[in-house]
Amino acid sequence: MSQQMADLFKRITTGVHVIGVAAGEQHNAFTAAWVMPVSFRPLLLGLSINPCHASYALLKAGGCFSVNVLGKDQLELAGHFGAPAETDKLAAIPWRSGKTGAPLLDSSLARFECEVMAEYPAGDHRLVLGRVVHGELLETAREPLIYRDTADMDGTSAIYPQGFE
Amino acid sequence: MSQQMADLFKRITTGVHVIGVAAGEQHNAFTAAWVMPVSFRPLLLGLSINPCHASYALLKAGGCFSVNVLGKDQLELAGHFGAPAETDKLAAIPWRSGKTGAPLLDSSLARFECEVMAEYPAGDHRLVLGRVVHGELLETAREPLIYRDTADMDGTSAIYPQGFE
Repeated sequence: MSQQMADLFKRITTGVHVIGVAAGEQHNAFTAAWVMPVSFRPLLLGLSINPCHASYALLKAGGCFSVNVLGKDQLELAGHFGAPAETDKLAAIPWRSGKTGAPLLDSSLARFECEVMAEYPAGDHRLVLGRVVHGELLETAREPLIYRDTADMDGTSAIYPQGFE
Repeated sequence: MSQQMADLFKRITTGVHVIGVAAGEQHNAFTAAWVMPVSFRPLLLGLSINPCHASYALLKAGGCFSVNVLGKDQLELAGHFGAPAETDKLAAIPWRSGKTGAPLLDSSLARFECEVMAEYPAGDHRLVLGRVVHGELLETAREPLIYRDTADMDGTSAIYPQGFE
């Protein structure tokens, strides 16, 4: 039934993004599907983040995050940044610090930098709103990776509840 | 430049949904791209809504909304529910009231019903969190419509600001 629930919720289409965070000399990055625009003026992106993740503390401390949009060809990179952070996940991946300090991956097809503007409770997650201070489209012809196409790579079918309450 | 901004933000992939609202005997529905899951437990969907839209008052009054996921073949229906509400947009479209009262379209490929749990400021929009009380996947083989594939049907390229602030 959890698998059925995961199948259902994957019909709400999202992309796959590597979220970069930074505070001082510390950097980290993780894969996230739950990202969307929420406002035109100011330009805001919404990110729903699990506060138990190591990167959450860095996001809070640094007050910024980047959104690196992955392409259809980057399933392996999505897996790399989706794994638990036992080692420095950024070590083997080309990246640079953006104007906020948050990591920008060289291989993303588009990327955004945000300053945290608000944070709200959202069940077992936190909903972070970021004001977009910079963004660039690197490759117009490349297709973004769709979260549904990652199948159960992230193991969420085991996380979904069995039914509705 | 606004067109370039729209092109950039469309790299953050979302689907296309008809959001149904109801309060008493009144019903309405509108097209929205800015919908995503935000929590596993409880199951929450986030919807970013323009508070100037007629449906916002009904959503507030009724305390519920439905999310009808459109398929790749339903670009025309997305346009129908995206147009300003001068007439009853639901009149010519087969639908029924769900358990919350919110309209469920017969032709959606998946649909959800939510009870409003929280509402937060989000720039020129409002971010509404809905607890999912029911959901069903009607057609597993049908592909969802991707917002980027609607091109500029909704005219958002004229709404985006010219640059970053």
